[in-house]
Amino acid sequence: MEHGAPKRDIDFVLSKIEERGFRAHPSIGVERTIIGVIGDNTRDSIPYFQQLPGVESVIPVLKPYKLASREAHPQTSQIRVGSAVIGTEAIAIAAGPCAVEDREQLLSTARLVKDCGAVMLRGGAYKPRTEAYAFQGLGKKGLEMLAEAREQTGLAVVTEVVDTRAVKEVAKYADMLQIGARSMQNFALLREAGASGHPVLLKRGLASTVDEWLSAAEYILAEGNPNVVLCERGIRTFETATRFTLDLSSVAVVRHHSHLPILVDPSHAAGNWRFVRSLALAAIAAGADGLLIEVHPEPARALVDGAQSLDPDNFRKLMSAARKVAKAVGRAL
Amino acid sequence: MEHGAPKRDIDFVLSKIEERGFRAHPSIGVERTIIGVIGDNTRDSIPYFQQLPGVESVIPVLKPYKLASREAHPQTSQIRVGSAVIGTEAIAIAAGPCAVEDREQLLSTARLVKDCGAVMLRGGAYKPRTEAYAFQGLGKKGLEMLAEAREQTGLAVVTEVVDTRAVKEVAKYADMLQIGARSMQNFALLREAGASGHPVLLKRGLASTVDEWLSAAEYILAEGNPNVVLCERGIRTFETATRFTLDLSSVAVVRHHSHLPILVDPSHAAGNWRFVRSLALAAIAAGADGLLIEVHPEPARALVDGAQSLDPDNFRKLMSAARKVAKAVGRAL
Amino acid sequence: MEHGAPKRDIDFVLSKIEERGFRAHPSIGVERTIIGVIGDNTRDSIPYFQQLPGVESVIPVLKPYKLASREAHPQTSQIRVGSAVIGTEAIAIAAGPCAVEDREQLLSTARLVKDCGAVMLRGGAYKPRTEAYAFQGLGKKGLEMLAEAREQTGLAVVTEVVDTRAVKEVAKYADMLQIGARSMQNFALLREAGASGHPVLLKRGLASTVDEWLSAAEYILAEGNPNVVLCERGIRTFETATRFTLDLSSVAVVRHHSHLPILVDPSHAAGNWRFVRSLALAAIAAGADGLLIEVHPEPARALVDGAQSLDPDNFRKLMSAARKVAKAVGRAL
Amino acid sequence: MEHGAPKRDIDFVLSKIEERGFRAHPSIGVERTIIGVIGDNTRDSIPYFQQLPGVESVIPVLKPYKLASREAHPQTSQIRVGSAVIGTEAIAIAAGPCAVEDREQLLSTARLVKDCGAVMLRGGAYKPRTEAYAFQGLGKKGLEMLAEAREQTGLAVVTEVVDTRAVKEVAKYADMLQIGARSMQNFALLREAGASGHPVLLKRGLASTVDEWLSAAEYILAEGNPNVVLCERGIRTFETATRFTLDLSSVAVVRHHSHLPILVDPSHAAGNWRFVRSLALAAIAAGADGLLIEVHPEPARALVDGAQSLDPDNFRKLMSAARKVAKAVGRAL
Repeated sequence: MEHGAPKRDIDFVLSKIEERGFRAHPSIGVERTIIGVIGDNTRDSIPYFQQLPGVESVIPVLKPYKLASREAHPQTSQIRVGSAVIGTEAIAIAAGPCAVEDREQLLSTARLVKDCGAVMLRGGAYKPRTEAYAFQGLGKKGLEMLAEAREQTGLAVVTEVVDTRAVKEVAKYADMLQIGARSMQNFALLREAGASGHPVLLKRGLASTVDEWLSAAEYILAEGNPNVVLCERGIRTFETATRFTLDLSSVAVVRHHSHLPILVDPSHAAGNWRFVRSLALAAIAAGADGLLIEVHPEPARALVDGAQSLDPDNFRKLMSAARKVAKAVGRAL
Repeated sequence: MEHGAPKRDIDFVLSKIEERGFRAHPSIGVERTIIGVIGDNTRDSIPYFQQLPGVESVIPVLKPYKLASREAHPQTSQIRVGSAVIGTEAIAIAAGPCAVEDREQLLSTARLVKDCGAVMLRGGAYKPRTEAYAFQGLGKKGLEMLAEAREQTGLAVVTEVVDTRAVKEVAKYADMLQIGARSMQNFALLREAGASGHPVLLKRGLASTVDEWLSAAEYILAEGNPNVVLCERGIRTFETATRFTLDLSSVAVVRHHSHLPILVDPSHAAGNWRFVRSLALAAIAAGADGLLIEVHPEPARALVDGAQSLDPDNFRKLMSAARKVAKAVGRAL
Repeated sequence: MEHGAPKRDIDFVLSKIEERGFRAHPSIGVERTIIGVIGDNTRDSIPYFQQLPGVESVIPVLKPYKLASREAHPQTSQIRVGSAVIGTEAIAIAAGPCAVEDREQLLSTARLVKDCGAVMLRGGAYKPRTEAYAFQGLGKKGLEMLAEAREQTGLAVVTEVVDTRAVKEVAKYADMLQIGARSMQNFALLREAGASGHPVLLKRGLASTVDEWLSAAEYILAEGNPNVVLCERGIRTFETATRFTLDLSSVAVVRHHSHLPILVDPSHAAGNWRFVRSLALAAIAAGADGLLIEVHPEPARALVDGAQSLDPDNFRKLMSAARKVAKAVGRAL
Repeated sequence: MEHGAPKRDIDFVLSKIEERGFRAHPSIGVERTIIGVIGDNTRDSIPYFQQLPGVESVIPVLKPYKLASREAHPQTSQIRVGSAVIGTEAIAIAAGPCAVEDREQLLSTARLVKDCGAVMLRGGAYKPRTEAYAFQGLGKKGLEMLAEAREQTGLAVVTEVVDTRAVKEVAKYADMLQIGARSMQNFALLREAGASGHPVLLKRGLASTVDEWLSAAEYILAEGNPNVVLCERGIRTFETATRFTLDLSSVAVVRHHSHLPILVDPSHAAGNWRFVRSLALAAIAAGADGLLIEVHPEPARALVDGAQSLDPDNFRKLMSAARKVAKAVGRAL
């Protein structure tokens, strides 16, 4: 309650709390009166209470998600994605080009990343692009190429879906539906992906808190789909030396609050291949369950985000270094 | 080029620029060589050049949007929305509840805001909510109520669309489709809204730069739909005293770079009705073409965002104050 | 307390609260137990409680400042600065060059801004510069020129002090000591400025919340110096279209929580003279008690921040427009 | 130049470039004319050029620092700090309490961290505190205790200096002067610390870009003091799950642009001991030259920042894990 709120206001608020079926626990101090509110679904009443006379602020104490919380599921979830499993002792690496561009390029990249130890192939068939006139992906043709690469290599395929109307089609080809940072709060898409029952890779929105991210995961889980994997990919800050600021503390924060496994995408965050290796190793040491890495046979020819793709040689070196760090923190790779 | 880049690298880059059909203008300094690149569609080649040996960085000089730029259209656009026009000397006020909740409440609010001088009724039938279990709006029933309120009052109706599959239905009832902050980079939705030909109110994404916002507008314009109105509604920063940080400088920045009219939504930005009046008046003084204001007959009973809604009395006072400020800056209200 | 915290932990925390002389008010819910803590100086014990077994988080309810709060002083303070008073019905304008560069330039600028209605002359003698090799101000010679300008025009002089050792000297020449954004948490400087008894203009730190800003003001007030004026000058965000993001909502937030008057500096925030007028008018409409405006007789020749300075003609036009907006919101100028 | 800038403006700008002794390299495109400017000290003229008629924007290409750049000094610097050296193959650990509180506590902590492999003792004698009434450190008495701890253990001592007037005194007791995040742009303090010749640990400002951070280092280096060590400690973002957002990408960015060694402080960034281990290991994997870790014999009794301090047992476990990660990335610990 506000400083100096009259007894009349306090009594009014207490009566309204009880009217709504909650219990009120007032703590009357010299400077302030604080009222604890106990009950089911108190969150929905926050705007109501915020408006009552004499109320200074309403501070929610419970988290806005339930199914995503570690309280609901104490063990870290293990999510099967095609031939891969995420959330085990093994670090799961997804690698591949930012966008699927041509068949040969994709197949050779798939073979390369498989040889180096990746278990998933990543590649965009539908690309959400900030600029209206930029290359937007090959669409269905790209999906078919990804499926062919899976057949040849056994890699699980993860690819982005950006439109509710495309969820079914993408689910036909992909082992895991990726929901990109810009779609993290596209709630219709979250529900559709949830309803598909397919594994979902949910990237963190670039201005989303961890609480909002887990709340977005809750939309998928609430559709009865437990197969959610999170992916930290950097948040937007004032720093321009990197494209986004990779928030590696989210790995420990997610692990503390949630049972969902978490991958890290250092390529998009850095926006510059020179910084990818450092961040990839850091992510494994921080406790991530895996990585998303952009690899391109010839980064200088990539149509999308070439600047942040590793060439085959650098990817191979990264995997060898990652293996050592994984072992140092008790994980396998 | 990097400091100390060898002549071999510089020559290679120059040859690649010409190979792609551009012209190269090298400036050779003591510490650095800078190469200007001139031609059509140079932006698409940025990732390509970024990867070449010896290249330190590629700095785009042209803006990523064309149709949205003031260069393309020197006069501020005037957009007709039902009975209202946005972008004229007159300040256009859209007001109403955050979410449509019941028929009586909506009709009485509509009459109230009309009496006070608003020209548009705002109200959400589909509400994107951060939390999975929160009230998500009345859907089609809400649209019907909005249409009824328009019939009774003559106000133009603006309401949010969150799903590509709902664009046609919402366009049947609404005079202007609102694309919310969380959907600003839902490119499928932008295209669908563009294709509808309907006026679109494009809210700024909460982590979007003005350049990205205008690039999102470009998606709509590129579908042949010139009826785009922008709406500043606050960006996400470290400050928690307000829900978002209203960036009123975007009004002058947009006006400098674009011909699209711009509204300001102080209610969502503030998240607290106490700060709405101050920001609303500031927006008009800054040069905004109008306001979006949340008004609720009984804010304490609102199901969504009651904390930021003005009650009828405060809205009436705001409109009277806004009228004076509008006049002071040469606008009508 | 954490979900599922055992009774043993709860009892232990309760005993520790009482041991420290506070009163404990537990609210025992189904999912969580919340304990209200009441007493003097509870803030100091936050780290202590945060560490106790079973404690999930400690949420402070009281503000960290007292003397700066409106509760302590319900009326807005009026601060006398030389011949000017800040915090009255009259809008107080401080104008002048970013840095004092030469005598003639300063005197002519002073006469100009005085003629247009400014009551204070601003100008830097000591300039904190991000870059080590940039022009750092004229120092004492600059102070003498400012004092001469005051004698000739009667304007009050406000100038920045950046070093504890210079507070006394600057106070000899200036009517108000400016503490810049980068010094807002230079606590030694705050104390020294407080001890001087001189009026202090405290700019908001570029990554400081309003609470931290008022806490910094508290350092000055706690030295027995009530003459503190705040100045919003933009915060750092991801947006690069302006140099900083002017947070005009801070005007209403400060007015709600504090009795200290508040000025707004649109010049530094915008970093571009084109956007200064829009933001200056917005600041007055928002309820600011005055403005800091950079004016330079020939902006293109300014050694520091010329890009954001108004030329004499634009300043004159701004003042005329500002007068109308001030009148519209019931203020004088 | 602006779109459609007339030839007259372009010629005027070209003439002014030459007047200032620079060379101009115009690139005339269909939509824009770009003018490269080559010469010494062009940065100082940025505001001048920004103001000329027809100029749209001036984009600096050179970095604002020289001595701090890797171009100036291709090998990573090795900085001797008392008995320790930073910047070698060995990871350097500084550990200790946030604030020095009492002699026994400090000496036992010093022995503990020495036993676990730390080479430096950290501890604040002067504490900059956001809140005016919080504990501000023991001052000189704290310095004496630190010196005693060094004598007993051989650890190098690093402690913060917050006031220009205290640099000499602190330098008498400490092996390395720490300049805190809130002082990073206290340029008077930087110069004084530079002039002392003493090793300086320069923490990153909480709203500072890497470029600004290296520019702050330049102030120290420009005083003829090459002994600068950087320390990443988190930046301010919208995320509140951690106190600050540790920007581990800055490790790779600094390493790319500068020869100065870099430490990481996960304790202040996390603000919660639960997340320290994850971030500490990540920092080493990212390539940091060492860590600053808060350790307290009884965190629950700490007067300052107890919530983020490791207890002895957790510190010992961290060091053992850190040793493995260090080895995995080819470093010693």
